[in-house]
Amino acid sequence: MYDVMKVREDFPILSREVNGKPLVYLDNGASAQKPQAVIDAVTRAYAHEYANVHRGLHYLSNLATDRYEAVRETLRGFLGAAKEEEILFTTGSTQAFNLVSYGWAAPRLEAGDEIVLSVMEHHANIVPWHFLRERQGVVLKWVETAADGSLDPQAVIDAMGPRTRLVAVTHMSNVLGTVVDVKTICEAARARGIATMIDGSQSAVHMPVNVADIGCDFYAVTGHKLYGPSASGALYVRAERYAEMRPFMGGGDMIREVGRDVVTYNDAPHKFEAGTPGIVQMIGLGAAVEYMQGLGMENIAAHEADLRDYAQAKLGGLNWLDIQGNAPGKGAIFSFTLEGAGHPHDISTVVDRKGVAVRAGHHCAQPLMEHLGVSATCRASFGLYNTREEVDVLVDALETCHKLFG
Amino acid sequence: MYDVMKVREDFPILSREVNGKPLVYLDNGASAQKPQAVIDAVTRAYAHEYANVHRGLHYLSNLATDRYEAVRETLRGFLGAAKEEEILFTTGSTQAFNLVSYGWAAPRLEAGDEIVLSVMEHHANIVPWHFLRERQGVVLKWVETAADGSLDPQAVIDAMGPRTRLVAVTHMSNVLGTVVDVKTICEAARARGIATMIDGSQSAVHMPVNVADIGCDFYAVTGHKLYGPSASGALYVRAERYAEMRPFMGGGDMIREVGRDVVTYNDAPHKFEAGTPGIVQMIGLGAAVEYMQGLGMENIAAHEADLRDYAQAKLGGLNWLDIQGNAPGKGAIFSFTLEGAGHPHDISTVVDRKGVAVRAGHHCAQPLMEHLGVSATCRASFGLYNTREEVDVLVDALETCHKLFG
Repeated sequence: MYDVMKVREDFPILSREVNGKPLVYLDNGASAQKPQAVIDAVTRAYAHEYANVHRGLHYLSNLATDRYEAVRETLRGFLGAAKEEEILFTTGSTQAFNLVSYGWAAPRLEAGDEIVLSVMEHHANIVPWHFLRERQGVVLKWVETAADGSLDPQAVIDAMGPRTRLVAVTHMSNVLGTVVDVKTICEAARARGIATMIDGSQSAVHMPVNVADIGCDFYAVTGHKLYGPSASGALYVRAERYAEMRPFMGGGDMIREVGRDVVTYNDAPHKFEAGTPGIVQMIGLGAAVEYMQGLGMENIAAHEADLRDYAQAKLGGLNWLDIQGNAPGKGAIFSFTLEGAGHPHDISTVVDRKGVAVRAGHHCAQPLMEHLGVSATCRASFGLYNTREEVDVLVDALETCHKLFG
Repeated sequence: MYDVMKVREDFPILSREVNGKPLVYLDNGASAQKPQAVIDAVTRAYAHEYANVHRGLHYLSNLATDRYEAVRETLRGFLGAAKEEEILFTTGSTQAFNLVSYGWAAPRLEAGDEIVLSVMEHHANIVPWHFLRERQGVVLKWVETAADGSLDPQAVIDAMGPRTRLVAVTHMSNVLGTVVDVKTICEAARARGIATMIDGSQSAVHMPVNVADIGCDFYAVTGHKLYGPSASGALYVRAERYAEMRPFMGGGDMIREVGRDVVTYNDAPHKFEAGTPGIVQMIGLGAAVEYMQGLGMENIAAHEADLRDYAQAKLGGLNWLDIQGNAPGKGAIFSFTLEGAGHPHDISTVVDRKGVAVRAGHHCAQPLMEHLGVSATCRASFGLYNTREEVDVLVDALETCHKLFG
């Protein structure tokens, strides 16, 4: 039995007030709050177990290295990767996409080669590919979403042509909540010799993920959305892709030997992890993932499905609210505009006075905004600690907006 | 009056034991321990003030953004930069060097263009330039150090030729403690139209730094060595260089508009800060810098100069110890080998049993090791909380080594 009130006690920030009201935190799509277990892991690391990792031989360095490297196995299990070395540590999804763009795509793709994207990708899964367009003539091919916000896997497959080298799509839209059938897409891509990169920044937070089952080549997750520290994250790389990649960042740890006119590189994953890493951030991310596993990803998904259904019913009853995205099986992420409200920013500001934190803007998804015909939306995105009562508070706050702007 | 015993009370880890002995932490060159003020800033951010920054409009997002962006001014003052926008937030020096390599050098340097380096650079200030050698035929020109480990600025100036586009040198060697007269080097480079990148990873920890006075174009510091969180750091960029740089990483926050076939970029510094940043890490780094400023950088430097003198006298008295580097005004960093000891790793392991944390290896400076004719050294590197008594413990531990291996 998932006891959300008990779960909430694990998150110290949830007991605070904002503008004199209890905090109702519905900005989880941007970043999630941290359980005490994560804060404690971070504090313990800094206060009792801190040193630089890998090349030290002294007690604290060995201890910190053990704690840090143990997270690789935690993440391997969490993502369902076959091998530990398939887990690269990153500072977040943005670094992961850039690593694949610079490390895998840039040396391999030529002018006229194509990358297939959906229009609902986050800028992190767009701009690194725009670099390849600007710098070496790679072509970006865009796949539209349907009216309900769903993405037909066949439309993605149909976009794959003889020059397609990479398909880069999200597993769950950060704006619409749409869950994409990435397994079908990856299977088709693989059959055509096309690489696949999946944006798991949202999906891994809300549902069980198994990269081996999906069959992708690259899968990015970001720690700060996974209830972990900022500047943490991981990239799954299918082991056989390593041989096709050159290093992204250079520095310590990623080399074998450095001479004056020669450099040789370490084995993966270290080859792609230059310099002193986010030691404590990754230890904190390990604690966050273990926290989620303790609750059970299936239980989290079920709780959030209930929240989604409840919110869909409640918000759907507000006939002056335009909700974007209604794909079957979507996540508990709701983007909307309000008839008469000048700008979603106004909505955000008004509901903030009621203690409700939502985000307003383009959500780093401008091609989607253009596709939807809006410049911005207001977004309420739920997490494992949210409640039906918080949906009610949101609805009340929106009704206040409606009275003000309607 | 600098009261080191009082300072030590600020660092919780210093009261712990290692192998049944009080911890004597002399691995500051690899990473520094954290004062309670930093740990508290991190905890407060996660437990009470956390949200994603910049595009939020709700209370917590505004609060986190204010806390995060305030660190830019703190770092501007700390480094003596003229303008706040000259401070780029990074995850550490490695990212900074790669940012300059990918963002400034790669699009500008052609085959046969030269980068001048000293042989005592850290791999972080070598490997990103090796990428340019490997990928586009850039030539690396190496300047030797003198027998005492000093670097003659004139030797660096003499290495600047008509094809030299960049001089990249350290301000303080992480192996020898040598302080380099970077001001003279930068002045000469500037007169020749050559850009300068200074590695401040060690120097900014141990002495006052003023980038405007130095006259460099790029200056990198790393937060985890500055008593701050792992995965934090900053890069000073002289404002006029921004116009010569293209983006390094792509993603959210660094764009102005993203379309299907067009992308335009945000202004600096944000143009070079893609994605959700290390929000809490940078807040923690701000607290670390304020902590150091509270003690006073001149006071820290004076305290460490005393430690250096004391350690030089004590270690210099061990005639079976070979100390590498004895440049005038060097920092409190001592690299050494021990006659008869098979490998510096053995020394490290033995002194660790006495609670003394030192590092053994190539210290990410293989060209220097080759120059010195050693494969590795043992390194004791001091910080603001170390004491003369700890030097004595180190000397005792080394005498034990001498008895074992001598």
